Formats: sequence, C-alpha cells, structure tokens
Amino acid sequence: MSAIKFELIKTCKQTGARLGKIQTPHGEIQTPIFMPVGTLATVKAMTPEELKDINAQIILSNTYHLYMRPGHELVEKAGGLHKFMNWDRPILTDSGGFQVFSLGPLRKIKEEGVEFRSHIDGSKHFISPEKAIEIENALGADIIMAFDECAPYPADREYVKNSLERTTRWAQRCKDAHKNTERQALFGIVQGGMYKDLREQSAKEITDIGFPGYAIGGLSVGEPKPIMYEVLEYTTPLLPEDKPRYLMGVGSPDDLIEGVLRGVDMFDCVLPTRIARNGTAFTSQGKVVARNAIYADDFRPLDPECDCYTCKNYTRAYIRHLVKCNEILASRLLTYHNLHFLLKLMEDVRTAIQEDRLMDFRNEFFEKYGYTK
Amino acid sequence: MSAIKFELIKTCKQTGARLGKIQTPHGEIQTPIFMPVGTLATVKAMTPEELKDINAQIILSNTYHLYMRPGHELVEKAGGLHKFMNWDRPILTDSGGFQVFSLGPLRKIKEEGVEFRSHIDGSKHFISPEKAIEIENALGADIIMAFDECAPYPADREYVKNSLERTTRWAQRCKDAHKNTERQALFGIVQGGMYKDLREQSAKEITDIGFPGYAIGGLSVGEPKPIMYEVLEYTTPLLPEDKPRYLMGVGSPDDLIEGVLRGVDMFDCVLPTRIARNGTAFTSQGKVVARNAIYADDFRPLDPECDCYTCKNYTRAYIRHLVKCNEILASRLLTYHNLHFLLKLMEDVRTAIQEDRLMDFRNEFFEKYGYTK
Repeated sequence: MSAIKFELIKTCKQTGARLGKIQTPHGEIQTPIFMPVGTLATVKAMTPEELKDINAQIILSNTYHLYMRPGHELVEKAGGLHKFMNWDRPILTDSGGFQVFSLGPLRKIKEEGVEFRSHIDGSKHFISPEKAIEIENALGADIIMAFDECAPYPADREYVKNSLERTTRWAQRCKDAHKNTERQALFGIVQGGMYKDLREQSAKEITDIGFPGYAIGGLSVGEPKPIMYEVLEYTTPLLPEDKPRYLMGVGSPDDLIEGVLRGVDMFDCVLPTRIARNGTAFTSQGKVVARNAIYADDFRPLDPECDCYTCKNYTRAYIRHLVKCNEILASRLLTYHNLHFLLKLMEDVRTAIQEDRLMDFRNEFFEKYGYTK
Repeated sequence: MSAIKFELIKTCKQTGARLGKIQTPHGEIQTPIFMPVGTLATVKAMTPEELKDINAQIILSNTYHLYMRPGHELVEKAGGLHKFMNWDRPILTDSGGFQVFSLGPLRKIKEEGVEFRSHIDGSKHFISPEKAIEIENALGADIIMAFDECAPYPADREYVKNSLERTTRWAQRCKDAHKNTERQALFGIVQGGMYKDLREQSAKEITDIGFPGYAIGGLSVGEPKPIMYEVLEYTTPLLPEDKPRYLMGVGSPDDLIEGVLRGVDMFDCVLPTRIARNGTAFTSQGKVVARNAIYADDFRPLDPECDCYTCKNYTRAYIRHLVKCNEILASRLLTYHNLHFLLKLMEDVRTAIQEDRLMDFRNEFFEKYGYTK
C-alpha cells in the first residue's frame, strides 16, 4: 500500500485545473499547493512555527545538500528530517539529480549513476539511483523523488531521447531499491525536454512502471514561458487522473496560475525566498524592490492588500532601511511576506476552482499584478 | 517634571545591590536590568514580539548609526523610533559619542563638538552636544544620554582630566538643549578613566548639574576585569541613591553579576547578540561554541537547564549544522537563546536580591558557569 492517498475532489469545467487532497503520514495537503523550499533542513530565515502561521502544508528539502551537510546518516540518527528540523507536517525530498547535474564540469554521467565532486570541498562522490533512494530513505520524507536527469535547455533530440530513456531505467531501479513504501511515497519523473513525442515516450514508460505520483521535470530550465506552457499543455493529459502531478522548480505567481490551469497539483521553487533575501517582494500590484529610493519615506505596507505579519506591522520605509543595512530582519520580513503571498495565492486558486471562477480569478489577478495576457 | 520615576525597592544587606523600578512613558522597567542592543532600529535577528516573549523590558538603540542610516529626520517623520521599528516598550538611545570617538583618525575633537567622517561613505559630519540632543529628541527614546567623551584605555591622567572636564561642560550644554523633558529623560555620564580622584571629580560635577539618572562611562574599554570592578566599587557610592545607575557597554554574565553587586541598575552590550551570530551560546555550564565538531551528533539542547524556545525545540547537532551552513536560523536561534539567558539571569538576580540570597546565588552561578573566584 502506498504511503499517500490522493483524492481528486473536482476538475475545473473550463480548464485543466484540479482540486484535490493528498493524505500523507504527516497529515493532509490541499492541492493545488506551493511547497516552500528548505534546502538545508531549514526554510531560509523562517521557523517551523512561522511556516505554520502562513499555512504551509508541506515543504521541500534537497537530498544533495543534506547528503553533503550534515549527511543523511546524521539526519537518520537524529530520528529523521522531521525531527531533526522540528517540522511535523509533510516533507518532500528531491533526489539530488537536479543539483548533481547542475554541477556541470564537476560531474560525469554513466549508466550506473553520476560521479561528481562536492561544490563545498571538491571531494569525490558517486550517486546511483539506489544510492539516492538510500539517502532519501534515511531522510524519511513523506514523498521522495526518483533519481533522474534533468536535460538542459536547449538540448538536441538525440541527447534528450538518450537521457529520458536512461531516466526510465533509473526510475525502475529507484522503485526496486525503495524500502519504506508504507511510510514514503516515491514519485516518478517525466522528462523529454521540449519534444512532444519524447514527452509521450517518457510519460508512457514512467507511468508503465507505476508510481503513486508523477512529476514533470525538465521545465523552467531557461526556456521561454510560452514553451513551458505548451509542453505542460500536452504533458499533463498523458498522466493518470488519479495521481498527483508535480511541476518541479516553478514558483512565480504567473507560472503557478498557468500551471494550475494546465492540470498541475504541486509546485516548488526557491524564488520567493531567494528574492526576499535580495530585498524584493511579491505584491498584488506586482513586484516591489524594497531597496529603491522611492520607498525611503513610503510609510505604507509592502502590499496594502495583504494582511500578513509583515504588512500589518511594518512600512516600506522601515523595510527599505533594513534591506540597505543588511539586517537579518529584512530577510525575515520579506521571506515571510513572499511565502504568505504564494500560499495565499494558491488558497485563492483552490477557492476559485471550487467556485467555478478560476478564469475570472486568473484574469483579475494578471490585470492587477501587471500582466496583460 | 522628569519623564521617568525611579523607585528604590530594596538594597541588599551584604552587597551594594539594589532592587528598583523605573516608570517610563512606555511602561515600567524592573531593575537591575540588561538592555538588548538594537543598533539600527532592530535587535539583530529578532522581532519585537520575540523580544517580548523573552521579557525584554527596554532596548537600546544607537544614535550615531541611526543618524547615518536612515537619518533621524526620517525616523521622526515615521512617528519616532518606537513606531518606526514597531516596539512599544521603553527605548534608551546613547548619544553617539562612543561611536564617534571609536572612529579614531576619522574624527577631530574640539570644544564645540566632534568633526568626523562617516564610516559608510566618508562624508563629513559635525556633532556637538546640541546636535546629539537634537537627534535624540527626534528619535524620541524614553531615556537619552548626554554627549560625552569615552576616554580610551590606557590614557594618562592629564588626558583623562581634560576629557572629563569637557564632558562636564558638554553635559551642561546637553541639559540646556534638551527639549522633551516631559517625554524623554536625559542621563548624565560620569567619566574619569581608572583614576579614583578623577571619578570623584566627574561624579561631583555631573551630579551637581543634576539628571534623572546617571551612567558610568569609560569602563569595559579594554581594562582588566579587576580594575573595572575596582572603579565601579568606588564610583557607584558617589552617585545619588535615588537615581538609576547605568553601566554602559557591559554584558557578559559574570560582569552583570559583579556590576549588580556594586550597585548598578542597568546594563547594555552587543555581546550576547554578536557572539550568537558567531555561533556561540551562553549556557548555565559556560559557553558552547556550537560550530565545534564535538556537537556534531549531540542531540541535547544548547543548555539542558534552559526552557527557551531554542532549547525546547532544537538540538546542538541541528544548530551546529545551521551554523556551519551560515543559515539565518542559526543566528535567530542563538540570539534568542543568548538574550533569554541574560534576561533570565537578571530576573534570577532580582529574585535573589528580594530573597536576601544574592551572594549565594552568585557563588552557585560562578561554580556552574566555570568561574572559580
């Protein structure tokens, strides 16, 4: 029996959007959902309590980074990732594949796995599908991802085809190696780049193996947004209706909405937390770059329509001051606000699906947020 | 009428320690008290709510830094420092003197005031006693400090004498310039270096001018601890019993206790917050340098006797991991713990004075904390 149970509550009549819920060993997740990223067993600048304040239902953590620091054995010894980081709600771990492939010249791909050097100390490592699952089993997340290759963009057909076929073989090896099926659900990942027939091939191969959930990988890797939307458009219908669909690495407000319209249930991205530490806020009127001089004596909240802790208590002028002085509180207030913004957006999206007005919601949002399409 | 009212509740029978309270426009302060430092209108890594969680009664902010960034006019336009930073309890601002004198070759002392160049952009500035008070009036803290010279250590008698006499003249000018006497209490500062007769001269001159509270400046500037304790020993009795006494820039656990024993009511220091960001914790068993390898798989809290948020929820192993990865949460958890530690220490000190067992408390504390004297 799978560690998770997905229930499709409703499908939008006008679009591909779905309303659902996922039961996990650490509680229920309402979908569509955005997952804040806690790379190194901490969502940067946030406490678990603050994540709960803003209704984070599930967070993501990175297998590659945790394997490097502090090491999966230590996390296991601590009682698993949930206990180690003091987070009792669901966690998803990626497989480390994306980070390892991002190392560029530091890594070498073989059928058996990937050889690479650490980005921290240059030490040599080897991660195979079996090793990735061993690490993810030790970390103990509720949802774990198969070890795949995320092909770069652009990449020629031949490269992408070889890569996706190896990813299929690796997916089978991951499934075979997975130990904790009753406590951790292993998701397969569909690759195939920007080639429709290769996405079809990958989706068929991966769904034939069979997983309790499926991710769409290899998007948001530098391609223009219309191409990403097009690939999504023909890829999500290739996936089973009764399993959750996860679009990896996507997290701008517009991409979240466009992804939901095309039938995606889960998203993750470092964008909201990273731009926060850079001094930028998502708001209902578009981005606010808090460092800008125009906010020096602007005593309004970051987003006048927002009711988060940051917006209820602090002005743009104060936040600009904190950003300019590199104060930790700047990162805290902006991270809190940006995550609240995306989680609230997804909550509004769920309500709009429920109330059969998702397209109206989308159009209103884009008009205010500054998109015209 | 003064903006504050000091009530001396009790004097220790065995030592010089005092139990008191200070009424301010933003509420009451129980003394002896440690004041966390919020240099740039934020106690680094903390929110105001967290400061309240750990019972911070008053915080200190730095006039020099706020004058530089964001500028006192902006803070005034924001409605004053309390409103700007979202802190509704008492605030004390220093005069900027200490920071300006620390600029070394960047500053030039004249009778009129001090000319200096900004540590940020090299721009030229001039602060006189009148200017310091103008800035402090704009910031709007409950307690403000006179503009003084903190002489270096070591310094010869002649230098210290000239300096303290100028500080006296400046103190009078500060008092004359002070506008908001009903909302802000101006404290005088006793100087005189490590010379007993000069401390006597300074204390007489400053108390003759008359202030609602007095600080002891020019200590904790590099002199050995026994010398600091000796100077305190003969200086506090020179100050009126019915006014609060504030030892500037002191904040190690042992110095707080030794200061209280010698009749000090108020302390401030960046030490607890600075070493926190460096990865070091105060604990009841002495300092814990969280980065150390011995804590890699130590699943105990930082301080097993502590009941703060950090110690209730996180292990040394996790905090070490965060420190090694330069995660913001490391600074947050350690800052929270260190400030809680000092504020709890002062609470315990107040209780010990109340219960006539301060010397026992001191001896037990030092034995556990690792001091033998």
